[in-house]
Amino acid sequence: MNQITADVAAAIKEVRAKVPLIHNITNYVTVNDCANAVLAIGASPIMADDISEAADITAISCALVINMGTLNQRTIASMIVSGKKANESGIPVIFDPVGAGASKLRNDTTKALLDQVEIAILRGNASEISFIAGLEASTKGVDAADIDSKNDTVKIAKEVAKKHKCIVAITGAVDVISDGEKIVKIKNGHPMLSKVTGTGCMTSALVGSFAGAIKDYFIAAVGGVASMGIAGDIAYEKAGSIGTGSFHIAIIDALSNVNTQIMEERAKLYEE
Amino acid sequence: MNQITADVAAAIKEVRAKVPLIHNITNYVTVNDCANAVLAIGASPIMADDISEAADITAISCALVINMGTLNQRTIASMIVSGKKANESGIPVIFDPVGAGASKLRNDTTKALLDQVEIAILRGNASEISFIAGLEASTKGVDAADIDSKNDTVKIAKEVAKKHKCIVAITGAVDVISDGEKIVKIKNGHPMLSKVTGTGCMTSALVGSFAGAIKDYFIAAVGGVASMGIAGDIAYEKAGSIGTGSFHIAIIDALSNVNTQIMEERAKLYEE
Amino acid sequence: MNQITADVAAAIKEVRAKVPLIHNITNYVTVNDCANAVLAIGASPIMADDISEAADITAISCALVINMGTLNQRTIASMIVSGKKANESGIPVIFDPVGAGASKLRNDTTKALLDQVEIAILRGNASEISFIAGLEASTKGVDAADIDSKNDTVKIAKEVAKKHKCIVAITGAVDVISDGEKIVKIKNGHPMLSKVTGTGCMTSALVGSFAGAIKDYFIAAVGGVASMGIAGDIAYEKAGSIGTGSFHIAIIDALSNVNTQIMEERAKLYEE
Repeated sequence: MNQITADVAAAIKEVRAKVPLIHNITNYVTVNDCANAVLAIGASPIMADDISEAADITAISCALVINMGTLNQRTIASMIVSGKKANESGIPVIFDPVGAGASKLRNDTTKALLDQVEIAILRGNASEISFIAGLEASTKGVDAADIDSKNDTVKIAKEVAKKHKCIVAITGAVDVISDGEKIVKIKNGHPMLSKVTGTGCMTSALVGSFAGAIKDYFIAAVGGVASMGIAGDIAYEKAGSIGTGSFHIAIIDALSNVNTQIMEERAKLYEE
Repeated sequence: MNQITADVAAAIKEVRAKVPLIHNITNYVTVNDCANAVLAIGASPIMADDISEAADITAISCALVINMGTLNQRTIASMIVSGKKANESGIPVIFDPVGAGASKLRNDTTKALLDQVEIAILRGNASEISFIAGLEASTKGVDAADIDSKNDTVKIAKEVAKKHKCIVAITGAVDVISDGEKIVKIKNGHPMLSKVTGTGCMTSALVGSFAGAIKDYFIAAVGGVASMGIAGDIAYEKAGSIGTGSFHIAIIDALSNVNTQIMEERAKLYEE
Repeated sequence: MNQITADVAAAIKEVRAKVPLIHNITNYVTVNDCANAVLAIGASPIMADDISEAADITAISCALVINMGTLNQRTIASMIVSGKKANESGIPVIFDPVGAGASKLRNDTTKALLDQVEIAILRGNASEISFIAGLEASTKGVDAADIDSKNDTVKIAKEVAKKHKCIVAITGAVDVISDGEKIVKIKNGHPMLSKVTGTGCMTSALVGSFAGAIKDYFIAAVGGVASMGIAGDIAYEKAGSIGTGSFHIAIIDALSNVNTQIMEERAKLYEE
C-alpha cells in the first residue's frame, strides 16, 4: 500500500467520525443522489440556493459544493455570494463546472466564479476542464466525453491547478488529480457509470464531504473520486448485468459501506 | 390491539379507497420520493408551486402539504397564497418546517406561515419544533437531531399544539404526536432512516395523504408517521444489511404494501 | 411480425448507434428519472431551462422535449424561446402537456405553446389530450385517468393530430398513436406503471430520444411509447410482487436492456 492510499484510507474514517455539514448549491436533476451520496459516505447534506439564506447556510457548513448543472440567474447570484462567504470563513469551495463550454451562460458563469471565488477543488470531466484551460473543447451534453485519450489530461490538470491555485480533479476512464505539481491517477470505476446521470455530480459532493472533514484538499479530492470509483467497481460486480437502475442503487449501497479496509483493498491509486 | 391502532388501521383503508389528491409545495431534493410515497400509500400527488396556479391547484385538492426544504422568495409567496386558499376551502394544511432555526429566511418563513395560515398538522424533528416552541435549538443540517433525549419532546409537542391549535408530530427515535392534550408515542422505525434523505419529507407527505382521506387529523398524523416507521422496520429487515440505496427502495416497497393487517400487526403505538 | 414492429425494432438500433443529445425543459419531480430513461435507451440528456441559455442548448441538440409538470413563469418563457429555436433549426419538438385542464396557467401555457411552436409529437394521457381537443376533461392530478374507455381516444387522437399537424400519442391502458390518418394501438404496459410517478414524463423523454435519432416521427412516437410499455411488462414480471420501489428500478433496468430482439419479441403493436 502506497502513502496516498494510506492517507485516503485514514481520511474516510475522519469523514465518518466528524459528519461534516456540506452545503450544496446544485442542480435539480441529480440533487437527491448527491444528498444520498453525502449521507452514504458519512457526511450531512444541506441544500439551499436562495440568496436570502445562501451565505447564512454556508457560514454554518464545513464545505461548499457549487454545481452548475441547471444554473439560472437566481442561483448564479447565490453561488457567488456563498462562495465569497466561504472564502471569508475559511471554508473550502468545491466547484463542478457542469457543461462548461456548452453555452455562453455556462462559460460566463464559470469565468465569474473563477474570478470572484477562490476555489479549493475543481472537479469536472476532460471537456469541462479543457474549456477552463482555454483549450479547444467540444461538449456533448454533460457526460464524461472520452477525450482523455486525445488530450493530455495530466498536462491540463497541472496547468489549470497552477493557474487557479487549486486542486484539479479530471474524471474519466482514468481520473487525474493534481495540485499543479503532484499527480495521482485513479484507475477505479467502470464505463457503466456514464450510463447513470449524476455520477459526476455525486463525485463532487463526495469530494466536498472529504474536504469538510480534512484539511489536506489534495487527499480530499483523491478520496472523493476514489470513493465513487470503488463504488462503481463494486456496483458493477453486483448489478452490472441487471441494468442501469439496479447499478444506480448499488452505487449508493457501496458508498454507504466504504470504510478504511475497503479503501485499502480496492483503491487503485498511482502517484506520478 | 388498542383503540388508536384500530383507528389507524381503519384509516389506511380509507386512504386507499378515496385516493385523495394531495397538493405538495415542496423542495427539489426529495420531491420524487414524496410523490412516490404518496402514490405508494394510495393517494395521488400533485406538485405545483407557481403563484399563478398554486391556489387553483389547492382548490381541487384534498390536502395541502407545505415543505420548506429548498424555499425561495418565489415559492414562499405560493405557500402563503395556497395556505390561505386551503383555509378558506376547509382543506387541511400540513406544514413541515424543514431546517427551521438554521437561517433567518427559514425562521421568518416559519413565523409568516404560522401567523397567516391555520395549520392542521405540524410535523418536524425535535430541533425544528423546538425552534417553534421558542426554545433553544441548534439545527445541524436537516437530519433528525438526536436531541429527543435532552429535551422533553412530550412537553414541547403539547405546548406547540396548544399555542398553534394544531396537531404536532415530532419525529425521532420515538415519535410523539399531540393535540395539546392527548399524547401518542410511536416506537416504529430504525436509525438507518436518517441515512436516506427525505424520510422526514416523505413522512409529512404521508401525513397529508391520511389527512386528505379522513377528518380526524390526530389519527391522520399518527397514521402517516406510523406508516413511515413500519416501512422503516420492514425495509431494515429486507435491505438493512445491503446498504442505504437498497434500504431506500425497500422503504417505498414497504409503503406500497402497508394495509390494515400490517398496520395492526406492526404498529407500536402507545397512548399516554 | 408486422411492418410497424420491424420499423420500431430498427429504430431502437438507430438510437443506440447515434446517441442523440436530447434537450429537456422539464419538471423537478421526475427529471432524474427522465435523464436516466434517456441514458438507458441509448441517448444523451441535457437539462437546461434558463432563458439565457435555453436556445443555445436547443441549437446543439437533436430533439427538444417540453414537459409542463412544474411550470413557472421563468421556465414558460424558456419553453417558448427554445421551441421557436427548434423550429428554426429543424429540430423536432415533443410536448408533454402535464396537467392540462387542471389550472388556468396550464391551459394558457398549453395554448401558447401550440400557437407559437410547431409540435412534432404531442404525448399525454386521455384527460390532457381531451382538453386540447376542446372536449370536456376532468383532470385529477397528473395520473393517467382511466377515461380511455369513456371517450373515444382514437377519434380524439386523429382530430388533434389533424388540427395541430403533428403526431399524437395518447397513453393509457391501451396507447393510441396517430398522425391524423393512421392509427397504431400499443397493448404493452401494466397498471402498476400509474403507481410510479413520472412514467408518463419518461415516456415523453423516450419519444424524444427516438425523434432525435430517426426522421419518421410516427415511428419515433410508437418506439418511445412501446419501449416504456415493454419495460413495464418486464418490470412487472421481475418486481411487481415486491412493491412499487423495486418496480420503479426494474423499469430503468428493462429500458437499459431494450434492443431490437426484445422489441421484436415483446411489442404488441396493432395497426388499424
